[in-house]
Amino acid sequence: MSQAQDVVGLGNAIVDVIAHAEDAFLAAEGMAKGAMTLIEAERAETLYARMGPGVESSGGSAANTMAGIAALGGRAAFIGKVKDDQLGAIFAHDIRAAGVAFRTRPARGGAPTARCLIFVTPDAQRTMNTYLGASVELGPEDVDEALIAAAQVTYLEGYLWDRPRAKDAFRKAARIAHEAGRKVALTLSDPFCVERHRAEFQELVRGPVDILFANEAEIRALWQVRDFDAALSATRGLVQIAALTRSEKGSVVLSNGKTESVPAEPVQRVVDTTGAGDLFAAGFLHGLTQGRPPAEAARIGAIAAAEVIAHVGARPERPLKALVAERLG
Amino acid sequence: MSQAQDVVGLGNAIVDVIAHAEDAFLAAEGMAKGAMTLIEAERAETLYARMGPGVESSGGSAANTMAGIAALGGRAAFIGKVKDDQLGAIFAHDIRAAGVAFRTRPARGGAPTARCLIFVTPDAQRTMNTYLGASVELGPEDVDEALIAAAQVTYLEGYLWDRPRAKDAFRKAARIAHEAGRKVALTLSDPFCVERHRAEFQELVRGPVDILFANEAEIRALWQVRDFDAALSATRGLVQIAALTRSEKGSVVLSNGKTESVPAEPVQRVVDTTGAGDLFAAGFLHGLTQGRPPAEAARIGAIAAAEVIAHVGARPERPLKALVAERLG
Repeated sequence: MSQAQDVVGLGNAIVDVIAHAEDAFLAAEGMAKGAMTLIEAERAETLYARMGPGVESSGGSAANTMAGIAALGGRAAFIGKVKDDQLGAIFAHDIRAAGVAFRTRPARGGAPTARCLIFVTPDAQRTMNTYLGASVELGPEDVDEALIAAAQVTYLEGYLWDRPRAKDAFRKAARIAHEAGRKVALTLSDPFCVERHRAEFQELVRGPVDILFANEAEIRALWQVRDFDAALSATRGLVQIAALTRSEKGSVVLSNGKTESVPAEPVQRVVDTTGAGDLFAAGFLHGLTQGRPPAEAARIGAIAAAEVIAHVGARPERPLKALVAERLG
Repeated sequence: MSQAQDVVGLGNAIVDVIAHAEDAFLAAEGMAKGAMTLIEAERAETLYARMGPGVESSGGSAANTMAGIAALGGRAAFIGKVKDDQLGAIFAHDIRAAGVAFRTRPARGGAPTARCLIFVTPDAQRTMNTYLGASVELGPEDVDEALIAAAQVTYLEGYLWDRPRAKDAFRKAARIAHEAGRKVALTLSDPFCVERHRAEFQELVRGPVDILFANEAEIRALWQVRDFDAALSATRGLVQIAALTRSEKGSVVLSNGKTESVPAEPVQRVVDTTGAGDLFAAGFLHGLTQGRPPAEAARIGAIAAAEVIAHVGARPERPLKALVAERLG
C-alpha cells in the first residue's frame, strides 16, 4: 500500500540536453525563439551535431512540476514513458531521487527515450526542440487507477495532446480523478501547442478542467485575443481556479469570482528560464494541496520559479521547502 | 590530411554524473573525500541508486584538458574509448562540439561507456567514484601514429596506468612522440593513483616524461615526503618542466634550473572544484605550445582553472580565449 499522493502528474518523460547558443544560431536554424518545437529523429540528429557541448538533465514539464512538489515537501507521483535505455535510466533515477513516485513500465523496444535539445540564448531565454521518442508510447494502460483516485489533484500537461495514445491516457486519468471526486489541473504548455489544439483545449477548459495554468502568450492564444485583460475575461468563470503567469510581471489568479495579482519573486540574475512555468505550477499546487488560499499558493509558485531560473536546468537545486519557509516568514 | 595538433591527449573517456551531497553521506559510504576511487559495475549501480538527482556532463581528465585547449584557441585531439551507446554518443558529441578532434573507434560490445559519480559537498570539494566501463578497452591499436608524431605535445593521464592495455597505449604514444622529436607530458592525476603506481610513476618521471603536472598531494605522494619543499627538491632536474599546483596558493613551476611561483586567480565563489587541475594543465600546455615562457603559461593555467571552479562541471562554459586576453592584457 502506498501513501496517497497530493498530486499525480502525467506528461512526457524527457531528458533535456542544454547548451548555450547565440540568437544568430536560432535564426539560421529557423527556430521560434522561446517556443517548444516538435522534431523527428533525423532532425534531432542533425541539430545535435550542430549544437555546442551540452549538459544533460532530466526534464519534462509535468515531471519537473512533480520534482518541485517533492522538493517543497509534498507527495507527488509521475506517470510517463521512457525506454529501457541509458537516458531512460537517468530519467527514472533523477525523478525517484527527487522523491517522486515513478512506476510507469519502460518501453522494451521502439524509439529511444525522449530528449529535448534546449538552446539558452544570452538573454537567458530557452528555445526547445523535442524529439518525443518513447514518450509517445504512453497510453491508457499506463494510467494507474488507484494512484489517481487517491490523489488530491491530477495534473495534465498540454503537450500530451500532441499524440493520440497519450491523449487517451490524459482523458482516462481525468475521468478517474473526477469519478473519485478529485480535481483535474491542466497546463496549456506552450503557445504553439495551443495553436495546434485550440478547439480541443477550449473544450477541456469549459469541461473537465478544474485548475488551469497558462502564461500570457498561451492564454491569449487560447482565446485568440491580443490583450491580456480580454484573455482574463474570457477565462473567468470557466474553471474553479486559473493561475496565469506573466514572467517578471508576476501572476494573476482567478478564483471564486476574485481576481488577484501576485508579484514575481526578485531574482539576482536570470540564467536560464527553462522550467519557470513548471516550478510555478509546483509551488501553486503544493500550496493548494496544503490548504493555502490561491493567492498564497501563487506566492509559493513565484518563489519556486525564481529558484529554477537562477541556474541552468529545469529542476530545483536548492531545498525549496526551506526557501519557502524563509520567504513566507 | 588533418592539420597538426598542438596537443594530443590520451585518457579515459568518461561521462560525469554530478550531484550535491553532504559530508555525512560521504562518511556513510566510506568515501575518501576529494579523491578518485575506482568502482566496479555493481557498486556503481548501488551508489547511483543512493545518489541525489544528477546532471550529466562529459568529463575525463585528459579530455577536459583537451576541451580547455580548444576553448583557448589551440588545436587539440583526444584518444580514448567509449562504447557505441547513448553516453558514448554524448561524450563524442561534446568533445567534438568543443572543437577537439576525436576519432577513436567506439567499442561495439562489452561494458558500457565509463561514468564517474561525482559528489560535490557544500565546501565545493568533489569526490569521484569512477566506473571505467568501456574506457579500459583503449589499447595500443587506438594510438594514431601520424596524429601523435605531428603534435607538439602528447599528454598522458596517470589514471591510464590503472589498466594494462591502456598502459600499453600510453607507452606506445610516448615512444612515437619521442621518435618524432616531440614532448611527452604526464599528469599524476590523483594521490591514490600515485600510491597504486609509485615505483612506475617515479620511473616515468626519471625517464620519458618531459613535462610533469601534479598537485601538492600527488607530488608529495610520489616522493613520500611530508613537505612540499622536499617534494620540489626531489623533482628538480628530473624533468624539463614541472608545473605543481597548490589550489588557492597558486602554482610552482620548475624549469631550466629556475623555480617560479605563480599566484592563483581570484574566484568570487568556488562552486565545484571538478576539473581545476585539468584546466590548469590546459592553460599551461596552451601557453607553452604558443611559445610562452613557463611562468606565463602557468598564469594562463590559473585563469582557466578559475573559470571551471566557478560553476558545476569540468569543462569551460565561458570563452576562455577572450578571458585570457582580457586578464593578461
